Amino acid sequence: MRLITADQLDDIAMGAAVLGTGGGGDPYIGKLMAKAAIERNRPVTLLDPSELNDDDLVIPSAMMGAPTVMLEKVPRGTEIVTAFESIQEYLGRKATATMSCEAGGLNSTTPFVVAAELGIPLVDADMMGRAYPELQMCTPTLYGITATPMAIADEKGNSAVINAISNHWTETFARTVTIDMGCSAMIGLYPMSGAQVKEAAVARTITQIEMIGRTIREAHDKHIDPIEAVRGAVDGYVIWRGKLSDISRRTETGFARGEASIAGLGEFEGKTLRVSFQNEFLIAQTDDEVLVCTPDLITILDAETGEPITTESLRYGFRVAVLAMPCDPRWRTPEGLKLVGPEYFGYQTEYVPVEQRYGAQGGIA
Amino acid sequence: MRLITADQLDDIAMGAAVLGTGGGGDPYIGKLMAKAAIERNRPVTLLDPSELNDDDLVIPSAMMGAPTVMLEKVPRGTEIVTAFESIQEYLGRKATATMSCEAGGLNSTTPFVVAAELGIPLVDADMMGRAYPELQMCTPTLYGITATPMAIADEKGNSAVINAISNHWTETFARTVTIDMGCSAMIGLYPMSGAQVKEAAVARTITQIEMIGRTIREAHDKHIDPIEAVRGAVDGYVIWRGKLSDISRRTETGFARGEASIAGLGEFEGKTLRVSFQNEFLIAQTDDEVLVCTPDLITILDAETGEPITTESLRYGFRVAVLAMPCDPRWRTPEGLKLVGPEYFGYQTEYVPVEQRYGAQGGIA
Repeated sequence: MRLITADQLDDIAMGAAVLGTGGGGDPYIGKLMAKAAIERNRPVTLLDPSELNDDDLVIPSAMMGAPTVMLEKVPRGTEIVTAFESIQEYLGRKATATMSCEAGGLNSTTPFVVAAELGIPLVDADMMGRAYPELQMCTPTLYGITATPMAIADEKGNSAVINAISNHWTETFARTVTIDMGCSAMIGLYPMSGAQVKEAAVARTITQIEMIGRTIREAHDKHIDPIEAVRGAVDGYVIWRGKLSDISRRTETGFARGEASIAGLGEFEGKTLRVSFQNEFLIAQTDDEVLVCTPDLITILDAETGEPITTESLRYGFRVAVLAMPCDPRWRTPEGLKLVGPEYFGYQTEYVPVEQRYGAQGGIA
Repeated sequence: MRLITADQLDDIAMGAAVLGTGGGGDPYIGKLMAKAAIERNRPVTLLDPSELNDDDLVIPSAMMGAPTVMLEKVPRGTEIVTAFESIQEYLGRKATATMSCEAGGLNSTTPFVVAAELGIPLVDADMMGRAYPELQMCTPTLYGITATPMAIADEKGNSAVINAISNHWTETFARTVTIDMGCSAMIGLYPMSGAQVKEAAVARTITQIEMIGRTIREAHDKHIDPIEAVRGAVDGYVIWRGKLSDISRRTETGFARGEASIAGLGEFEGKTLRVSFQNEFLIAQTDDEVLVCTPDLITILDAETGEPITTESLRYGFRVAVLAMPCDPRWRTPEGLKLVGPEYFGYQTEYVPVEQRYGAQGGIA
């Protein structure tokens, strides 16, 4: 158990965007919301999953929608508390703690708003170990834990509580309601016991992203190569270096979809890497081969600063490095791949774990 | 207070389809569901609104969706009870009675299922005095009564409770969830006190539709002109007689939309009437003029039997009479017309009350 104050949120938001693989919402807005909530109320108690009692009630909280829209439709901040309170009211029980749904820009920091406003602890864990675009793509799904009852609320005062027969159905209903709400909404879902969190969540991701964020900041202060520093911090692989030569985006069916092309530089000169996304980066491939694909993590870093770039911030001409990281091992099981493997997203490729392609030791940069 | 047994449902379903103005769902399926529920459980107690206590809790129940779809996706019958129980659970209080949302084929009889299954009375009233395609189009909206909390459930076991800031927003959310549920769903909504029902509902429509249904049946038995019998029963106007010369239908945004053309016969020979619908018939016009439009009621009757024909049952060649009836006077206020007048449905015409066009006395047939 430790306290998180407003000034630690810079590192947390920065690190979250690395695991956020381009999505998970804009880290800047999430950070501002969380800082304001902490300053208005109190520091947030971060609870290690092992500190939970088995019969505690943990309700994860998040923002749902297209990150592109969230950039222009900034949350008021109170709607996430509304969503959280709806589900508590529905369950007739107060939550012991909240938790992040995903490790990603906005959604690593939005639960801090709930924790600070309601004076409850935040569990040091999430349900993906990265960010993913759909809500059934959570490790608890692999344990048969249902996402419902799930609450959803908008900034206007509308809300709903959903009960569905599967987490896929929950995604379907929540997605169309989110679109009705203007492509962004606040949600409370996957209510779990402490015992379930200990078994089914991805543990200690807040601590991990804080460490990653600190690494980027310190690399800058100490004039260390930031790309190599980040790579070392996440035990990942630098699979590409180059210049953004094209970016296409469209917001459809409630998601930000598109593709970034990166013309190779240095050892990658003469080739182009295409990185496709649906809120998050899902597959990185050249004309010849797939280099990395979901469920492994793909993140684009600014070549100068090592800072992660979200899909909405990608601009023509940016010099970048592409970082790949191994995912939580549970995503590599047959059930995990069925839920978040390349085939689910429509890519006809077989999943090869990133360390199998690039070797067990270090990067190729 | 009186008991309704299964054998009275034939008249009720038949009469409901007259006020249902072509929509409100298929009366045959609704009748079968209600009969089965009554036979399985008990007769239904029909309560006059004046018999309600002011602090009673009344929760109307209905089916939502495109009638075209409901014809093929027949309800299981239990989902309406699920929806009703969700809202009771949410409110933490049992309902004293249920009520119809609209006077229309399916939705005049579906609440009998709830009443029979749960052993609660049905209030002799509805919220439209006819059928309408959207759920904010209820007389309680004119009194500032909110449609939420509203429950929605499908036959698979999915459900949701919606809370919205306006009845228009409730319609928006419920419509997209209905589409996700396969274009048909069961709903419980507009929870009201007994006092609110007495003021805001359209009273005694079950008794009215039973009388209309009986009139059609008896006209057949007694060899009376059924069209004239129905016209007299509803104090309406026969505005057209002819033969169905064209019918177009499309299911879009969760509604059954289309247009029926009726080539005139007898005094209407040489002219064609076009009747447009969005679940319900909304406007009847010739090339020269609008004869009748919403909020007044338009119903197409089989010329031989006097039986009402729903939009889905219209077929080329049918010989029909078109009946127009005055609506509940509250729909003719500025607020009422804003909610259900021709402009809301996209028709650029000024509303002229049907009796103003056709005279205060009797029909023109």
